[in-house]
Amino acid sequence: MSDIITKVLPGFMELLPEEQIEFDRIKEIITNTFKQFGFTALDTPAIERSKTLLAKAGGETEQQIYSVENKKGGNIGNADEKTELSLRFDLTVPLARYVAEHMNDLSFPFRRCHIAKVYRGERPQKGRFREFYQCDIDVIGRDKLSIRYDAEIPAIIYQLFKKLDFGKFTICINNRRVLNGLLSSFDTEVDTAEILRIIDKVEKVSEEDFIAMLKEQGLKDELVDTLLKFIRIKGSVGEVLAQLKGLGIDNESFNKGVEELETVTTYMAEMGVESEYFTIDLSIARGLNYYTGTVYETKLDEYPKLGSVCSGGRYDDLASYYTKEKLPGVGISIGLTRLFYQLREIGLVAGTRKTAADVVVVPMDSSNVPTAFSVAGVLREHDFCVDVLLEDFSVKKKFQYVNRKDSTFTVVIGSEEEETGQMTVQYKAGEEIKKEKAPLDTLAEFLSKIQAGCTEL
Amino acid sequence: MSDIITKVLPGFMELLPEEQIEFDRIKEIITNTFKQFGFTALDTPAIERSKTLLAKAGGETEQQIYSVENKKGGNIGNADEKTELSLRFDLTVPLARYVAEHMNDLSFPFRRCHIAKVYRGERPQKGRFREFYQCDIDVIGRDKLSIRYDAEIPAIIYQLFKKLDFGKFTICINNRRVLNGLLSSFDTEVDTAEILRIIDKVEKVSEEDFIAMLKEQGLKDELVDTLLKFIRIKGSVGEVLAQLKGLGIDNESFNKGVEELETVTTYMAEMGVESEYFTIDLSIARGLNYYTGTVYETKLDEYPKLGSVCSGGRYDDLASYYTKEKLPGVGISIGLTRLFYQLREIGLVAGTRKTAADVVVVPMDSSNVPTAFSVAGVLREHDFCVDVLLEDFSVKKKFQYVNRKDSTFTVVIGSEEEETGQMTVQYKAGEEIKKEKAPLDTLAEFLSKIQAGCTEL
Repeated sequence: MSDIITKVLPGFMELLPEEQIEFDRIKEIITNTFKQFGFTALDTPAIERSKTLLAKAGGETEQQIYSVENKKGGNIGNADEKTELSLRFDLTVPLARYVAEHMNDLSFPFRRCHIAKVYRGERPQKGRFREFYQCDIDVIGRDKLSIRYDAEIPAIIYQLFKKLDFGKFTICINNRRVLNGLLSSFDTEVDTAEILRIIDKVEKVSEEDFIAMLKEQGLKDELVDTLLKFIRIKGSVGEVLAQLKGLGIDNESFNKGVEELETVTTYMAEMGVESEYFTIDLSIARGLNYYTGTVYETKLDEYPKLGSVCSGGRYDDLASYYTKEKLPGVGISIGLTRLFYQLREIGLVAGTRKTAADVVVVPMDSSNVPTAFSVAGVLREHDFCVDVLLEDFSVKKKFQYVNRKDSTFTVVIGSEEEETGQMTVQYKAGEEIKKEKAPLDTLAEFLSKIQAGCTEL
Repeated sequence: MSDIITKVLPGFMELLPEEQIEFDRIKEIITNTFKQFGFTALDTPAIERSKTLLAKAGGETEQQIYSVENKKGGNIGNADEKTELSLRFDLTVPLARYVAEHMNDLSFPFRRCHIAKVYRGERPQKGRFREFYQCDIDVIGRDKLSIRYDAEIPAIIYQLFKKLDFGKFTICINNRRVLNGLLSSFDTEVDTAEILRIIDKVEKVSEEDFIAMLKEQGLKDELVDTLLKFIRIKGSVGEVLAQLKGLGIDNESFNKGVEELETVTTYMAEMGVESEYFTIDLSIARGLNYYTGTVYETKLDEYPKLGSVCSGGRYDDLASYYTKEKLPGVGISIGLTRLFYQLREIGLVAGTRKTAADVVVVPMDSSNVPTAFSVAGVLREHDFCVDVLLEDFSVKKKFQYVNRKDSTFTVVIGSEEEETGQMTVQYKAGEEIKKEKAPLDTLAEFLSKIQAGCTEL
């Protein structure tokens, strides 16, 4: 017994009930918001063929991937076929495989959401997880996908973060073509991908280091200066667009990018996103290679250190490694495990309820169990979650149980309640514990009213 | 591209959107029912230390387990500590580890539900999966756990399968002590565990084979006969209990088992389980060693070939491999992936909706997008899931999209709708497609009414 470790592995998150309830509450808001925008949930296996997962991936992913093996008769059960298997490291590659495989059974534009765990063998460190939830939505077109979807995505982010209620937030929009176009307009040949990666770091490093990194890429002082001025263009959406147009850069990609930014932000306003909730931020590049147009980051205004809590963008082709069909798409991802960890660290989420139950019903004696069950049954029909305490505890221990669970209501059933038909209801009103009576047939209504009142306090 | 396989691995389930919607609907009923009984959802990592997972497991489990490895710097990230990792093969072992680890932060009796995927490298065959959902609930006591919880578990099964609506079902109850006691009362020494395993197979093999297997265990004709008669005792709960008492077996375990059966079935009736939905079935043994008292199986009356769709039982000690504390518990598990597969095979579940959206809003023209978004926003506030078609399709292709999605409602917005303020609503009433008009401010109410009417049809 002594050599068995029960502690959770480093880099893995495991929550106590009160934290889990809070985690699940956030996950449910995300799921429901995605559903309300017509996204259908998918669920693909966590295990895939390594070759399929890594078709497109580069060095770091290959290093971080977890391989999976079963000793019995080869990995897919046939002695003559040994297939290398791995755990998925994101939900985008499985989506690409899924869409390529089931193309003819899907209707496009295809809206899918996927909220599930992914696995990366990163070095465990504060706030970095090896198993973590991603919450993804993507809209995939066949051959084409209207730019209106580029505007709908931030409209969804807007609704979602309003509901999540983590305070004021800002959706930052940029367009890859603008940066790419600017870099192409330089008279020096540059490694665009590398420069985009450097730009992504602008908020994390000092100006000095930032300039040094750009110079290492062979950019002359003048171009570094141009780039620095460029990514610092600030103002309202209209002002930024005006400044971009006023730069006089004659490059097709640049102009198309500016035009797309204008279209997307115009549609966003039409889709009801309040102007104070979004901005054009020309410093956003998004490291990933496959974004080709609009890119997004979302920042909590009061907690800038958290960085982007919801990011994504537009890509030209989802599944070029799996199919010849062209599948443009746009999507976002929330790294929920990390976000939850961060929110908990800054005290923005703190669960106190130790049970999913709204009500704990306490029969005082064995003979009260049938009534306790009737009461619970009636309350459940009215959508209350009810725990009936069935253990033969002493009265003292029964109320210890109730106190530790900290559900909204306690309904006590003893001989007096059985005789009078009036159930005893206990609940907290502020610091005070209130005790009231209610008959069974109106009990659910009674609790609903108190609950509505409580949330108003 | 050509050598990349996009087909899902054998032994893994992957669903199309219309099937996934149906799968998720069932999963949600299970989750909500568990919650309504006060079970708090847990979420433990899918990856655990192999040594911890296999502390108690026997040969077959070790054969079937998937080991997990990450190439980068040892499995838990420290060069000096290489820990063997595996994927969980059930949710009970992680529960035991969790409770042992977090004992002092939990309040007992501890009710937890866990609905998640587990992994077993079984030989892939029809209806057998290597990755599958288990839906578990357990109530864990500290030192003791009232037998009333043994009765509450079938009360939960009863409510759940009523809601799942797969037709009439029967919850079969037995008690390990009864069988153990009977076997101890024999004058021959027998391998109890082996005989229980044989009894578990009674419905799957011929009587001839069954008898032969028992005889192989060294049972004389007379005892085989006694056992056969015993497991065939049938009748109402009262009749079976009377027959058991009339057998005149003087064995402590046997008598305690019969007493527990009587207590559990009495409480079940008190907890509202209708008598036609449960029975005592003395042939139920449940293969797993760790059950010590009440055991359950659940059968769909109309589909006996499916076997048990929800099984479990009472155990004396959940986590003896991880802690010295005694943790008795009782729980059940539903193998949802397999169940869904079976239900689909017999045509009992068949999804037709290809989208999570209740409503598809179709702006006829680019200029109608803002109104389409207003409409969608209003409907979403009333809890409708709404997909706005934002692609620039031809009118024909727009309605192809609508038809393929097969949502309940289509709301069309063109210049006429903009001018009159009357939205065009299309929906199916039987085979007929109806077209009606409704103004935006009462649109949600209008759809709700039709929806209520539709479900009544």
